[in-house]
Amino acid sequence: MTRELRVVPLRGIPELEDGDDLGALLVDAAARAGGLEHADVLVVAQKAVSKVEGRVVQLAGIEPSSRARELAGDTDPRRLEVILREAREVLRVRPPLVIAETRHGFVCASAGVDASNAKGPDTLVLLPVDPDASAAALRDAVRQRCGVEIGVIVSDSFGRAWRRGTTDVALGVAGTAAIVDLAGQLDSAGYELHATEIAVADEIAGAAQLVMGKTDGIPAAIVRGLQLGGDGLGSELVMPRERDLFR
Amino acid sequence: MTRELRVVPLRGIPELEDGDDLGALLVDAAARAGGLEHADVLVVAQKAVSKVEGRVVQLAGIEPSSRARELAGDTDPRRLEVILREAREVLRVRPPLVIAETRHGFVCASAGVDASNAKGPDTLVLLPVDPDASAAALRDAVRQRCGVEIGVIVSDSFGRAWRRGTTDVALGVAGTAAIVDLAGQLDSAGYELHATEIAVADEIAGAAQLVMGKTDGIPAAIVRGLQLGGDGLGSELVMPRERDLFR
Repeated sequence: MTRELRVVPLRGIPELEDGDDLGALLVDAAARAGGLEHADVLVVAQKAVSKVEGRVVQLAGIEPSSRARELAGDTDPRRLEVILREAREVLRVRPPLVIAETRHGFVCASAGVDASNAKGPDTLVLLPVDPDASAAALRDAVRQRCGVEIGVIVSDSFGRAWRRGTTDVALGVAGTAAIVDLAGQLDSAGYELHATEIAVADEIAGAAQLVMGKTDGIPAAIVRGLQLGGDGLGSELVMPRERDLFR
Repeated sequence: MTRELRVVPLRGIPELEDGDDLGALLVDAAARAGGLEHADVLVVAQKAVSKVEGRVVQLAGIEPSSRARELAGDTDPRRLEVILREAREVLRVRPPLVIAETRHGFVCASAGVDASNAKGPDTLVLLPVDPDASAAALRDAVRQRCGVEIGVIVSDSFGRAWRRGTTDVALGVAGTAAIVDLAGQLDSAGYELHATEIAVADEIAGAAQLVMGKTDGIPAAIVRGLQLGGDGLGSELVMPRERDLFR
C-alpha cells in the first residue's frame, strides 16, 4: 500500500434516468480522462446507481401512516413514510433527522432516502436494493467493454456518531478489498499488530468524494495506484449486531 | 473540488524519539519525494507526533487503581489505568475493548492509548495534548524551512459505530478546512443543498492512510490538488454533546 495514489474525477456524465446504461456512460467518461487501467477502483455515487436502477419515488403517490405523521414533526409525513418503508429499525428521531437501519443493515440518516437533486424536492431517491450486486454489474460491464479488471465501489455520504459532518463510505463493493486485516502481520519493528481491520473501501470512497463534490455533477472517480487486491463486499463493512456496542 | 488529487507517501523517516525535529524530518522526506508545494496538505500519523512530543508512558511505573483492575478483565490493569487517566468518560467496556471519550472530546478505542510499535508492548503512546497546536507547529515549521503555505492534518485510526474496521480521521488540523459546509449552495440542477457538512479533513486523513499503511513505517503523506482553502481545526470535528444523538 505504498505507491502514489491518483484520484481522477469523471466529468460529463449526463443527468441519469431509469434504464440508462451507466456502465457505458462511465466507460465513456473514463476514456475522456485517459481510460481505465487494470486494478483501478471506480467509485460511483449511490444516487447515480439508484437512478438508473429506478429506485426513485414520487411523494405525490404516498399515503403516510399514523407513525409517519407522528415522527414527521412539522416536516412532510410522506417523506417519513418512504423512510419507514426503507427502514428495518428506527434508532433515533429528532425531526427532521431520522437515524435508521436500512434493510441492508446500514445505519444512516433517513434510511438512505434522499431528495433528488435534478428532479426537485418531491422526488426521492432510495438506496439500491443490493449495492454489492450493483457494483458487480458495473465491474462486469467494464470488463466486457474494456477488457480490464477493475474494482467498483458504490458510495454514499453517511454521518457518524460523535463526529460532525459526513464522510463517503462504501455501500457496495466488487473486485477490490472492503477490509484489510493486518492481524498477525508484523509492523516495521517486528511486533505483531492487533485490532487492525482497516476499512479501506470506506477510505477509498472518502478519497473519491474529495474530487466528486456534491454540487459539481461529478458522480464518479477513478482511484489508481492502490495495491490492495482482494474481492470484498460492502456487506462486510456492516458491524454484526452481536458485536455492535452502540445499538 | 474537481481537480485530480495525488496522494504521495513520505518514506525514510527514522524511528522517532522525544525531542526529534519532526518538521525538519518531514521536510527532508518531502524533498526526496519532489518537495512540498503551496496548498499541499501534509498528513502526519498521530503516533509520530506523540513520540516527538514525549507523550509516551512506560507500564513499569504504573500503579493500577481498583477501577482499572475491575475494567481490565484478564488484560493488564496498568494499561487500563493509563487509559482511565486519558479518559474524560468511559462509554462502553468489553474487555479488552474500552470505548472512551478523551479529554479532547474524541470518542475512540482506549482513549487513544496505543502500544508503541517500535518499543514493544510495555511502552504506550498517548494522543498529543493539543493536536491542533501540533498541526499548527508543523505548518509553521514547513513555512519557515520551505516558504510554502501548506495545510497539516494529524491523523489517527478510529473505529466507528455500526461499521467494521477503522478509518483514519483528523485529530488536529491547521491551514486547511476541517469541514466544508455546502448549506445554501446550489447543486448542478439549481436546488439548494441541505444537511451538507462534509468532514473533508477526515476524508483526507483516510486517503493518506491508503498509502501510509500500518506496517510499512510510513508515518506521513502529501495530499496534493485539493482546492479547499480554509483554516479549520480538528476540534470542529467533535460533535458537540448537545447535538449528539449517540451518547
